[in-house]
Amino acid sequence: MEDIRKELDKLEQYLKIKPLYWDFDKNEFLWIDTRLLPWKEVYRNTKDFRRVAQAIKEMEIRGAPAIGVSAAYGLSMALKYSNATKPKDLLNYAKEAYNVLASTRPTAYNLFWALNRIWNIILKSSEKEDVEFMKEEALKEAHKIYIEDIKNNVEMGKHGSKVIENNSRIITHCNTGALATAGFGTALGVIRYAFYEGKNIHVYADETRPLLQGARLTIWELKKEGIPSTLVVDGASGLLFNKNMADLAIVGADRITLTGHVANKIGTFNLALAANYHNKPFYVAAPTSTVQPTENPNDIVIEERSPSEVVNIMGQLTIAVEGTNAFNPAFDITPPELIHGIITEKGIVKKPYLNNFKAIIYNY
Amino acid sequence: MEDIRKELDKLEQYLKIKPLYWDFDKNEFLWIDTRLLPWKEVYRNTKDFRRVAQAIKEMEIRGAPAIGVSAAYGLSMALKYSNATKPKDLLNYAKEAYNVLASTRPTAYNLFWALNRIWNIILKSSEKEDVEFMKEEALKEAHKIYIEDIKNNVEMGKHGSKVIENNSRIITHCNTGALATAGFGTALGVIRYAFYEGKNIHVYADETRPLLQGARLTIWELKKEGIPSTLVVDGASGLLFNKNMADLAIVGADRITLTGHVANKIGTFNLALAANYHNKPFYVAAPTSTVQPTENPNDIVIEERSPSEVVNIMGQLTIAVEGTNAFNPAFDITPPELIHGIITEKGIVKKPYLNNFKAIIYNY
Repeated sequence: MEDIRKELDKLEQYLKIKPLYWDFDKNEFLWIDTRLLPWKEVYRNTKDFRRVAQAIKEMEIRGAPAIGVSAAYGLSMALKYSNATKPKDLLNYAKEAYNVLASTRPTAYNLFWALNRIWNIILKSSEKEDVEFMKEEALKEAHKIYIEDIKNNVEMGKHGSKVIENNSRIITHCNTGALATAGFGTALGVIRYAFYEGKNIHVYADETRPLLQGARLTIWELKKEGIPSTLVVDGASGLLFNKNMADLAIVGADRITLTGHVANKIGTFNLALAANYHNKPFYVAAPTSTVQPTENPNDIVIEERSPSEVVNIMGQLTIAVEGTNAFNPAFDITPPELIHGIITEKGIVKKPYLNNFKAIIYNY
Repeated sequence: MEDIRKELDKLEQYLKIKPLYWDFDKNEFLWIDTRLLPWKEVYRNTKDFRRVAQAIKEMEIRGAPAIGVSAAYGLSMALKYSNATKPKDLLNYAKEAYNVLASTRPTAYNLFWALNRIWNIILKSSEKEDVEFMKEEALKEAHKIYIEDIKNNVEMGKHGSKVIENNSRIITHCNTGALATAGFGTALGVIRYAFYEGKNIHVYADETRPLLQGARLTIWELKKEGIPSTLVVDGASGLLFNKNMADLAIVGADRITLTGHVANKIGTFNLALAANYHNKPFYVAAPTSTVQPTENPNDIVIEERSPSEVVNIMGQLTIAVEGTNAFNPAFDITPPELIHGIITEKGIVKKPYLNNFKAIIYNY
């Protein structure tokens, strides 16, 4: 664990906002409740994996990488606090926890990727027939995933910042910052990195209905660091490009197929159409853990959430008459032809995505 | 006035929702305060043109045709309740009222069109050197504008309904119904007409941020008449077309140039892009009084409204930290190449818009 804590110290400079972390003294998991932002900054803590699952499901924790890291901690905590004395019982309990955590959000690919990583470690370590070893190995892997996520974001920042010229006006959608990851951010990490490099930039943040992650979270992050920003409604991107007020768009991703189809927060596809119509680049930034190894975009599951999120804004303001039908798909899919490049920790992937993803991820 | 009241009786069948009207007994103007819908149904009344101007400016009354009709009543009321005894004094007072009413909303072309119609009648009638005659003529013209607007909407309905096949799923944006006109509606009038004809249709209503006219008003109207509807966020149109859940889009307009550039509620352009990308028709419905006789789309003034409308939803829910910058353009401009046809009371205008508008409006 000493190595891990040393690594974490080195990453501290990138964690001006710390959305989720492991408390090494209390041996518990903590996260900021993003549902309450920007009104209240409240950290939650638990030793119970079911509470982590609830936090993911109810979007106290959101953003594909943050979901993945939290699920990893959730699963390893399930083991840590299990009373099982036999490896077989611990495995059974772990499987139960896996299923609970995996059933929280269907689209975020990082969730399944992270759970599978922990699961494989549990399986492997179970060969030693030592429950304490299994517990330690699982938690160590969760720490690794946490650290990798931050490092990957910084790497994405380095690669991605190259496409942000000085004096760029950038449109982004949803929240892809520290609050969507273990820290630093994906698309917003790229923007952050460009700002740290001293570039003069301006960010237009789509408010991102229904849950307003752009208004509530992205603006909150940008203002915390003094990055110049302007909030706009989701329908404004066409006008912004048309009036030459924006130069490019960068968004995150919840799931990417090898074909370069990108599932991301509802409204992303429309932003991509607005950018493309005006011949402005549209970039996606995501770690390769977001890439599902499939060549079939129909494998992407789109989560449909409660209509009440549309009809009743943040549980606080009802905007339509009683009995209103609403359709609330959480994500849409942007096709590869609209995407200028996909910024990963391993570099910027360009078309043709299938060949280039295979080369960058599988080295062939 | 008898003729006018008879005409109004005939139109009653189209006025299941009566958004604004003249009270012939009390000689005052009434309107439903659309800011309070769907929470409260409150009618306001006044004999004061300044109150009408305020209602337009603060969007108690909104929608280009409704603005035009209300301004016409406002200007004629200014005359009616003026103490001027000399035609010259009445003209001066009318000019003052004209300016107050014209300064309320800069984009809605119907505002200027309607005010100019009343103004021309005032000028012409002033030749008789009889202030009572001037007052009567102005009010009569306002009634004519009111009646024409309803009739034009029904005509648009007849023409436009032809493009709505049975079992169509239609996306619309903002509110273009009874509440945006003297009654019946433009784009929503077309939808209403198709429904009255017995067609099986389903309407997807964009909620239309920032002021949520889709959620608050369109859904309210559709539910009142039992027209099947589903509320969606503005960013969902790409997904709806992509998943083959929608067949076409119909929207209204605040201003149209002879070139076929359409200024309409922010987000319209993005909807047009989503429809076009999927080769689905995108229609605009508006009376010819919305057409500005210019061939230069740069003549379109886009109203920029208070950032607080974005940051604070309907004055009831603040969605971003204090000090947030926001940009709040009320309209965007959809270029003619994205528009399948413009439905007017005189028929459906197709490309090339310049020639065809000239033919239909000026008969050459």
